[in-house]
Amino acid sequence: MSGYSQIGLDIDEGIATITLDRPEKMNAFTRTMMGEIVDAMDFIDGDDAVRAVIFTGAGDRAFCAGADLTPEDGAKPFASQQPVEDLSDPVVRDGGGRLTLRLFNATKPLIAACNGVAVGVGATMQLPMDIRLASDTARYGFVFARRGIVPEACSSWFLPRLVGMQQALEWTYTGRIFDAQAAHDAGLVRSVHPADKLMGEARALAREIADNTSPVSIALTRAMMWRLSAADHPMHAHRVDSRAIYSMARTADAAEGVASFLEKRPPEFPMKPSRDMPAFYPWWDEPEYR
Amino acid sequence: MSGYSQIGLDIDEGIATITLDRPEKMNAFTRTMMGEIVDAMDFIDGDDAVRAVIFTGAGDRAFCAGADLTPEDGAKPFASQQPVEDLSDPVVRDGGGRLTLRLFNATKPLIAACNGVAVGVGATMQLPMDIRLASDTARYGFVFARRGIVPEACSSWFLPRLVGMQQALEWTYTGRIFDAQAAHDAGLVRSVHPADKLMGEARALAREIADNTSPVSIALTRAMMWRLSAADHPMHAHRVDSRAIYSMARTADAAEGVASFLEKRPPEFPMKPSRDMPAFYPWWDEPEYR
Amino acid sequence: MSGYSQIGLDIDEGIATITLDRPEKMNAFTRTMMGEIVDAMDFIDGDDAVRAVIFTGAGDRAFCAGADLTPEDGAKPFASQQPVEDLSDPVVRDGGGRLTLRLFNATKPLIAACNGVAVGVGATMQLPMDIRLASDTARYGFVFARRGIVPEACSSWFLPRLVGMQQALEWTYTGRIFDAQAAHDAGLVRSVHPADKLMGEARALAREIADNTSPVSIALTRAMMWRLSAADHPMHAHRVDSRAIYSMARTADAAEGVASFLEKRPPEFPMKPSRDMPAFYPWWDEPEYR
Repeated sequence: MSGYSQIGLDIDEGIATITLDRPEKMNAFTRTMMGEIVDAMDFIDGDDAVRAVIFTGAGDRAFCAGADLTPEDGAKPFASQQPVEDLSDPVVRDGGGRLTLRLFNATKPLIAACNGVAVGVGATMQLPMDIRLASDTARYGFVFARRGIVPEACSSWFLPRLVGMQQALEWTYTGRIFDAQAAHDAGLVRSVHPADKLMGEARALAREIADNTSPVSIALTRAMMWRLSAADHPMHAHRVDSRAIYSMARTADAAEGVASFLEKRPPEFPMKPSRDMPAFYPWWDEPEYR
Repeated sequence: MSGYSQIGLDIDEGIATITLDRPEKMNAFTRTMMGEIVDAMDFIDGDDAVRAVIFTGAGDRAFCAGADLTPEDGAKPFASQQPVEDLSDPVVRDGGGRLTLRLFNATKPLIAACNGVAVGVGATMQLPMDIRLASDTARYGFVFARRGIVPEACSSWFLPRLVGMQQALEWTYTGRIFDAQAAHDAGLVRSVHPADKLMGEARALAREIADNTSPVSIALTRAMMWRLSAADHPMHAHRVDSRAIYSMARTADAAEGVASFLEKRPPEFPMKPSRDMPAFYPWWDEPEYR
Repeated sequence: MSGYSQIGLDIDEGIATITLDRPEKMNAFTRTMMGEIVDAMDFIDGDDAVRAVIFTGAGDRAFCAGADLTPEDGAKPFASQQPVEDLSDPVVRDGGGRLTLRLFNATKPLIAACNGVAVGVGATMQLPMDIRLASDTARYGFVFARRGIVPEACSSWFLPRLVGMQQALEWTYTGRIFDAQAAHDAGLVRSVHPADKLMGEARALAREIADNTSPVSIALTRAMMWRLSAADHPMHAHRVDSRAIYSMARTADAAEGVASFLEKRPPEFPMKPSRDMPAFYPWWDEPEYR
C-alpha cells in the first residue's frame, strides 16, 4: 500500500505495522529509511482509524543492524557530505535523532517487536517507543564506542531514564552485545517471547489499548507522560492535567467512558483526535534545533 | 478526635493515621474528602509530636475506588460547575492535584497502607507518598483513558519516576486493573503483606523512623530528596546540602546523634521542626498555579 | 608512587586504582583524603594512558566508614571552623560534595569495588561513580538522620536517580544499615562477589572497556550520559550528539572502529583525549557554587 522502498506499512483493524525491510542487509538504517519512517508516521498520526503502531524487522535475523557501514552509493559510514566548518548548520543533524524526535512527538502508542539483532541506531531508535517486546532471539548492542563514535539519536536522554544510569553506562562503555533476557532484566524490554509468538503478543497489547480507551485520551496521555515527567516540579503537570480533566470531563468521550463502565459493556468513544483535541493542546513550544 | 465527615484522623505514639472513611462507597473521593485530608495534613505538619503519617482505607474492600461517579448531590462525574470560558482560572484546578501537591510539601514521612481497591485518584494520590505497602488483596488501576479522561493529580510527573516510562505508559494506555504482586514487581509498592498484617508492618516502619532519627533531619531530607533530585545538575543539591550540613553540624541534634552512636544507646533528639529549622529553610520559591 | 598520606594510587596496564588507606580508622573520610582524591583525579584525567579508575578500601573491613567522628586534630565532627554568619561563603562548601562534583566531571569510567562497610560519605561518594561492584561482606548505610544531620555530597540528586525515590527515601528516613544483596536488589550495586574475587571482577570490567573502545568516545559518552539525561527535553541531546556524530565520523578513530569491526580484529584507536577532543567539547557552562 505504501510505495516505500525500504519499509513496509500495513494497517489492519486499526493497528499499523511498520516493517524495516532490507532483509538482505539485516535492515540496516539509511537516510532513505529514516525519511520513509517519518513519512509513515505523518500518515499514521493523521489517520484517526489507527490506534497503535508496531515496529518490527523483515526476515528472521534482524530488527535493524545499525547504520549501513557499506552503503551502495559509496558514501563513508556515518558521514554525510556537507563541509564541516559550521556545526550549527541544521544539515548536520543526526538522522537517528531526527527519527527519534519524530517518534517522541507521535500521538499513538508505539510498540517495538524486536525480532532479532538490534545494534547501534537499531537499538537507539527503539528507545522513544513506548513499550518494547522482544523475541528470545533478539540481541542488543549500544556499540558506538567500539566504532569510534558516540551514542546518538538522543539516546543519552532516553536510555538512562529507561534502565537507570548504571546499566546505561555499562552498556555504552563496553559496547557489548547482550541478549533479550539481559534486556528484560534491566527493564529495557517489557517481555520476551518465542520468535513465532512475538507479533501475536504485540498485536494483543495493541488490541487491548484500541478496544478499551478513548483515542483523544491516549494522545493527551502520551504527550503528558513523556513531557511532564521531565519537568523540575509537579506543578507543571498540575497546570496541564487540570486543564485536561476540566476539558475532557464535559465531552462525549467522558460520558461514554462512565456510562460503559456503569453498564459493564465495551465503550464506543465518538471523539476523533483529528478534530476533537481540547483547545489548550498542544500546550508546549517545541524547541528548535538551532 | 477530628470532626471530619469523610476521613478519620488518629494519632497514637507519634504516628498519625488518616483513614479514608466512606466504606459504603468504597471510600470514593470527593471534594469534601480532599479538603479534609489537606486540613489534616496542615494539623499534622504543625504538630511536632507526629513523626510519620499512614494512609489507609476503611473496611476490607477498598483503599479508594476513585472519584465518586454517582455523587449524592447529583453533580456530573469529574465536572465542577464553573463555566468553561477561562481555563486559566484557578477554580478549575484539579482536586486530585491540589491534594498531591499538598502531600508533596509534607514535612513528615508519608506511608501508604493500601488495603484493597485503588483506582483512578485512589491510585494517583498514593504517588507522592514516600513508601507504599500493600495487602495481597490490593488492586490498582490507572483507568483514566477507559473513562475518556486523562491521568491527573500530577501523576504524569510522579508515576514515570517511580516505575519508569515503559511501565507507566502500559498502565495508563491500557487502563487495566493489576494486582499487588504486579505493583511490587514494577516498584510501585515496596512490599506486599497479608491483609491482617498490613497496618502492623506500616506501623513498624513508621516506628523505625520515629525511634532513630532527628525530626528536623527528616523534614530537611524529605524536601531535599523530592526537590533536588529533579534539578538539571547536582550543583543545585550541593548548594543546599552544604548549607544544611554546615548548619546542622553545630546543633544539639548533631551532638546527640554522634554521642548516642558512640555510646551505643538510642538517641533523644531535642530539636523541634516548629522552632528549629535552619534559617535557609525553605530555600525554594514555590511555583504558583497561574 | 604517589606521596599521598591517606590514599594509595596505583596504575597498572591502563587501570588506575585509588585505595582509601586509613585501615586503622576503617578508612574514615577527612578533608585531607578529599583533597588527595581530587588531586589523584586531576592526574588521572590528564594521563591518556589511564582508561578506567577503580575505587576500593584498604583492609578487609571497610570501604569507608564515613566522616571521621573523632578526628585527631580535635575538631568537632562534620564542623569546619569558619564562622557561621555568611552561609553563602564558598568556604562552607561540603567536602563530600566537592568530591562528588569532581567525580561527576571525570573523563574516564569510574568503578566502585566496595569491599566492606560504606556508611555516610562512604556510601554517598560512590553514587557519582558509574558502576558499583560489591563484595558479599559490604554493608551500606545512609545514616545521616540518625546523626542529626542530612544526606550530603549531592546524594539527594544522585541517589533517587539510581534506585528510585521510594527506596532512596526508605534508606535515608530509617538510616538503617543494609547488606550487599539488598543493595543489589535495589539497583545500587551492579553485582555482588566473594571478597577474594571483587578486585578481579572490577579489573575485568575495566579491561573490557579499555580493550575495545575509543578513549575519546568514552570521554564524550560519559559527559553526554550524565549531563543530557537530566535535561527537560531530548532536543538538548540531539544538539550535542549531532555535533558529536558529525565530528567523530570524520576521525581516525571512526575509521579504525569500522575497519576493525569489518576485519574482525581488536581495534587500535589512535586518538588521545588530551589533544583530540572535538572542538565543541566541553559544550556546557559549568555552574558555579555562589
